Amino acid sequence: MAATVIQRLKTTSGDGNELYIKRDDLLPFSIGGNKVRISEAFYADMAAKGCDTMIIYGSRHSNLCRVLSNLCASRGTGCVMICSHEDGEEDAATNNTYLIDWTGTRIVHCKKSEIAQTVERVMGDITARGGKPYYIYGNKFGVGNEGTAAAAYADAYAEIRAYEAEQGWEFDAMFCPSGTGATQTGLICGHLLVGDRKRIFGVMISSRETKRAREVIDGGIRDYFARRGAELPAGYQEEIRLLDAYRQEGYGRYDERIERVIREQYVTNSIPLDPIYTGKAFWGMTEYLREAGITGSRILFLHTGGTPLFFDYLTHI
Amino acid sequence: MAATVIQRLKTTSGDGNELYIKRDDLLPFSIGGNKVRISEAFYADMAAKGCDTMIIYGSRHSNLCRVLSNLCASRGTGCVMICSHEDGEEDAATNNTYLIDWTGTRIVHCKKSEIAQTVERVMGDITARGGKPYYIYGNKFGVGNEGTAAAAYADAYAEIRAYEAEQGWEFDAMFCPSGTGATQTGLICGHLLVGDRKRIFGVMISSRETKRAREVIDGGIRDYFARRGAELPAGYQEEIRLLDAYRQEGYGRYDERIERVIREQYVTNSIPLDPIYTGKAFWGMTEYLREAGITGSRILFLHTGGTPLFFDYLTHI
Repeated sequence: MAATVIQRLKTTSGDGNELYIKRDDLLPFSIGGNKVRISEAFYADMAAKGCDTMIIYGSRHSNLCRVLSNLCASRGTGCVMICSHEDGEEDAATNNTYLIDWTGTRIVHCKKSEIAQTVERVMGDITARGGKPYYIYGNKFGVGNEGTAAAAYADAYAEIRAYEAEQGWEFDAMFCPSGTGATQTGLICGHLLVGDRKRIFGVMISSRETKRAREVIDGGIRDYFARRGAELPAGYQEEIRLLDAYRQEGYGRYDERIERVIREQYVTNSIPLDPIYTGKAFWGMTEYLREAGITGSRILFLHTGGTPLFFDYLTHI
Repeated sequence: MAATVIQRLKTTSGDGNELYIKRDDLLPFSIGGNKVRISEAFYADMAAKGCDTMIIYGSRHSNLCRVLSNLCASRGTGCVMICSHEDGEEDAATNNTYLIDWTGTRIVHCKKSEIAQTVERVMGDITARGGKPYYIYGNKFGVGNEGTAAAAYADAYAEIRAYEAEQGWEFDAMFCPSGTGATQTGLICGHLLVGDRKRIFGVMISSRETKRAREVIDGGIRDYFARRGAELPAGYQEEIRLLDAYRQEGYGRYDERIERVIREQYVTNSIPLDPIYTGKAFWGMTEYLREAGITGSRILFLHTGGTPLFFDYLTHI
């Protein structure tokens, strides 16, 4: 996979920070995004485990489900999506669900409180028909496969290092949206492996409890290092930096401050951001930089994609 | 500008052709597309001519207007869009018009039959206020600036040559959508300058008369060579290949054959195509390859972008 471009952004903050963005939204598969790297990791893991049917999970906004359904369809692999809904949440289609539909992937809807039994039922159905199901998150409780997705961004970290080597300097800090935590986990693993000085921040975009989010990332880091047979550096837990003050009312919720950032970044830097993941995290980053009084630093934001959500927002889906 | 990636596509035609696609839809500005290169060429030409206000022209589907409005906004340059409508055509917003709106670009609507006087009036207004207007297509009749846009793809042709040099072979043929003809003109100029053997085909997507389309491309080639002070190779006109059998009912019109190709390419190769430009041209290319009995060849399709139109289609805007 060719390295994605890193671009300098125009800023007007006057804080002396240099802002850069890594354009993983331009990865050349399924309309891009961090889930392209992560889906390849899941697919390879499924193959390594001798399974033949992919079970994916997400909300109707899920970029991961879009990419995985596309990857499976393009390779002729069966795929079932479990799509969870908050109580009272509308069930309307989004660009991602339209695209998942195009691939012929079967979508099984369930409530947020019924995920485990739905996973179990779908896996049972596949097994009963002689298939070998692979659930991306491990067992029915979503446990046991933490390190797989993380590996994708531990690998991608090398692209950032290569850019820094070209420039002759290192970024002081890096920010990414933090939802499942897989991308942030991978970046932290990449950072720990080389031992550079960069500080990595995950901007939380959902209402997952911060303590729980930290545990998930911690588990992912440990899983990743265990699989490599590598020793975890002492004090690695200090590298898990979660910003939980910018999630607003929770997953998918946003106000006019995020909307303003989205328009500003489109107009000024021609970058499409969506209100659920990248726009919220970008806004959170700028708020944090100001509140923490960070100045004169080189900052990298990871654009994790979600172009379909940008268009959902544009057309008020 | 970094070279865009060229990818091999999976095919099921069984004709022994190898199909490749150049992903100019992933150019990292304003959601990509060929118009990114072309807009940069227009902007540089405007600056060279000492003008300060850009006048752009297109339909509500215009990718060029999206990119130029974004480029002007990001650089603080004034911009006015003249948006023409066919008689009886609906005036509904599209993703591109939403995005143009975000940049604060003023949109002046007019009928297809009133373009010249509208251009004249807008230019007059700007001049009266002390500005120096630049109309991208030259004078009010859209004449006089044919070579500017072409230069962008004459330059981009070097990227294709570099890819071929890496592979150790040359493409036998190349296809692109042909609307204004600028992209095709540029590719032909690039081809003529190096004198390689590749055949370049423009798949017509509008109902522009074929004879007229040929004249426009011819004029563009002559303009480009004249500006460079280079001699035009004898017989250059034979290099203007226009396929006019695949435009269906005209600009913006398409049937289920094009829709099938769009879904197939998304599912099989994860490529987003839209029904107005790239999907129609891609379908036209596959039809032509079959009808002309072309086999065992290496074929390159230029993905000219239009991701906003892909999402228009997906959500039935």
